[in-house]
Amino acid sequence: MIHVLVGCTVKPELLEQALAVYRELIAETRKEPGCISYELLELRDDPGQLLLSERWLSQEHLNAHTQTVHFIRAMAELEILETAAPALIYTQIL
Amino acid sequence: MIHVLVGCTVKPELLEQALAVYRELIAETRKEPGCISYELLELRDDPGQLLLSERWLSQEHLNAHTQTVHFIRAMAELEILETAAPALIYTQIL
Repeated sequence: MIHVLVGCTVKPELLEQALAVYRELIAETRKEPGCISYELLELRDDPGQLLLSERWLSQEHLNAHTQTVHFIRAMAELEILETAAPALIYTQIL
Repeated sequence: MIHVLVGCTVKPELLEQALAVYRELIAETRKEPGCISYELLELRDDPGQLLLSERWLSQEHLNAHTQTVHFIRAMAELEILETAAPALIYTQIL
């Protein structure tokens, strides 16, 4: 299993717009093969700090995800709404 | 549900020792009430970067966890084996 964490910062005035994009992205992504979980988390002490927490069955499933229409569209829309950090890819060791 | 992420850096020569402490901590913690998941992840591009990824049913369950003997002992042992970042506490919004 592959864990992917993508942190991002959203300005308060753009949060609702960003959440609308995420809502659609998440709904479509959860239907994809190999998607174990795909959740948007908010840092409790700083609501503008979001974290996309993803679990994928394999790298191949993750690669396929990044080629989907809904992912590409969402990334384009989010680019102007948030500042995202690079994706961090983890594997579970214990 | 509460998501807790604790990042830490372990020097290569101390990794086996740290993993032994984590193994015990994880085995005990997974038995605790309210513990939904408790996993140790490793950053794929940098094996010395670990991430403890936790999910708890409530803050009360998380608080109880931090008072357990196995947690207190593990934190004492890990203090000399790793450099840990502050715990980040998230709530799931989507």
